[in-house]
Amino acid sequence: MNILIVYAHPDPRSLNGALKDYAVEHLQASGHAVQVSDLYAMQWRPTLEAGETPGPEVLREQEKLLWADTVIFQFPLWWFSMPAIMKGWVERVFSHGFGYGIGEHSDHRWGDRYGEGTLTGKRAMLLITAGGWEPHYSARGINGPIEQLMFPIQHGVLHYAGMQVLPAFLIYRTSRMDEARFAAARAELGLRLDTLHSTAPIPFRRQNHGDYEIPALTLKDKVAPDQFGLEIHVKAQE
Amino acid sequence: MNILIVYAHPDPRSLNGALKDYAVEHLQASGHAVQVSDLYAMQWRPTLEAGETPGPEVLREQEKLLWADTVIFQFPLWWFSMPAIMKGWVERVFSHGFGYGIGEHSDHRWGDRYGEGTLTGKRAMLLITAGGWEPHYSARGINGPIEQLMFPIQHGVLHYAGMQVLPAFLIYRTSRMDEARFAAARAELGLRLDTLHSTAPIPFRRQNHGDYEIPALTLKDKVAPDQFGLEIHVKAQE
Repeated sequence: MNILIVYAHPDPRSLNGALKDYAVEHLQASGHAVQVSDLYAMQWRPTLEAGETPGPEVLREQEKLLWADTVIFQFPLWWFSMPAIMKGWVERVFSHGFGYGIGEHSDHRWGDRYGEGTLTGKRAMLLITAGGWEPHYSARGINGPIEQLMFPIQHGVLHYAGMQVLPAFLIYRTSRMDEARFAAARAELGLRLDTLHSTAPIPFRRQNHGDYEIPALTLKDKVAPDQFGLEIHVKAQE
Repeated sequence: MNILIVYAHPDPRSLNGALKDYAVEHLQASGHAVQVSDLYAMQWRPTLEAGETPGPEVLREQEKLLWADTVIFQFPLWWFSMPAIMKGWVERVFSHGFGYGIGEHSDHRWGDRYGEGTLTGKRAMLLITAGGWEPHYSARGINGPIEQLMFPIQHGVLHYAGMQVLPAFLIYRTSRMDEARFAAARAELGLRLDTLHSTAPIPFRRQNHGDYEIPALTLKDKVAPDQFGLEIHVKAQE
């Protein structure tokens, strides 16, 4: 496979740096082709300017995305989202006509998005480190469940552009990493990297395939009846 | 009151620019003192660097926050979150010892956060424009309910730092603004600005006041029993 790692951490000697290096080596040793967009090292400009059209550095990132079969987004969780430098990568690279604003609008379709788009068929996975504890991000944890905190990214960016989104790989409580925990995390990451092609994606509903009213884009009454919130946009497992 | 508007839009001649100018005039005419952090005009650097400590431009923003009674964050919704330039304002200004990493950890407290912190007692409101339609952001809308999409910001940034968070003010379908809709939006915004001091904040639960187990920081079994997800961190209205 062709694998792109979009990576945002300011310190190459960090846990994130070590995990990124490990991922590259592990994937290459398994015969994959790997490219890395190391946003801090590239001094990526995060700010989308007024009337900006894609320049050479944006086109290069779009080509990497088109080349890739799978894209890994690796970042430390800062304020319950991706770092600004990566958010600005999304804003500039997922430009009009590439990441959004594609396809026709009719009674049956509302553009090519949410399951259809430029990146249809490609896989995506978030690789996240968090300082907090795992229970803080659990179903009743104070930060909110990690799946719901990541909904704007996994559903609103990646599924939106047509990608199949694998469950995120998370490492918690990063301030307490000793040798043993690091070795365990690396081994677990290795397993996830070995199964990128076979891991079942999150079954987000597709926009233009009958579940939603058009143009209101609310779920039809018969679909997940009387339910509300982010989780209704994931199909129940059958 | 002292009111700070943190504002991110690249084009001063935009709908956002017009609303920001209107908000400043309206608040000043009502006798409030207003400061604006116009992030694009300031050419704010969004990228948090390795080992960064607050420099003069960060300290200035922190002083504005300490001066303010109410802070309005105004931005266009880009990829279901704030623009990168504003995310980078949060990352750099809500620095360690100011926005997080405060207070003691014990059996009864887990730092000064989620209802307590540097910004305790101040009010915050998001002022957001969105290209999509209002039903797309409703309880069963495809984008997800706007309150849940904004949870990482309203709960994870603003409530986290101690602020009282007012319901967001939203303007939808911004590509179809004519004179009449603009006038209506401006009038509605004027009403919200006139009631900043009296609008009831979202009743997010406070971390150190008995609802959460410490240190797991999961809701106690007796609180919102058998419920899950982001919404359980908002107290039911009595």
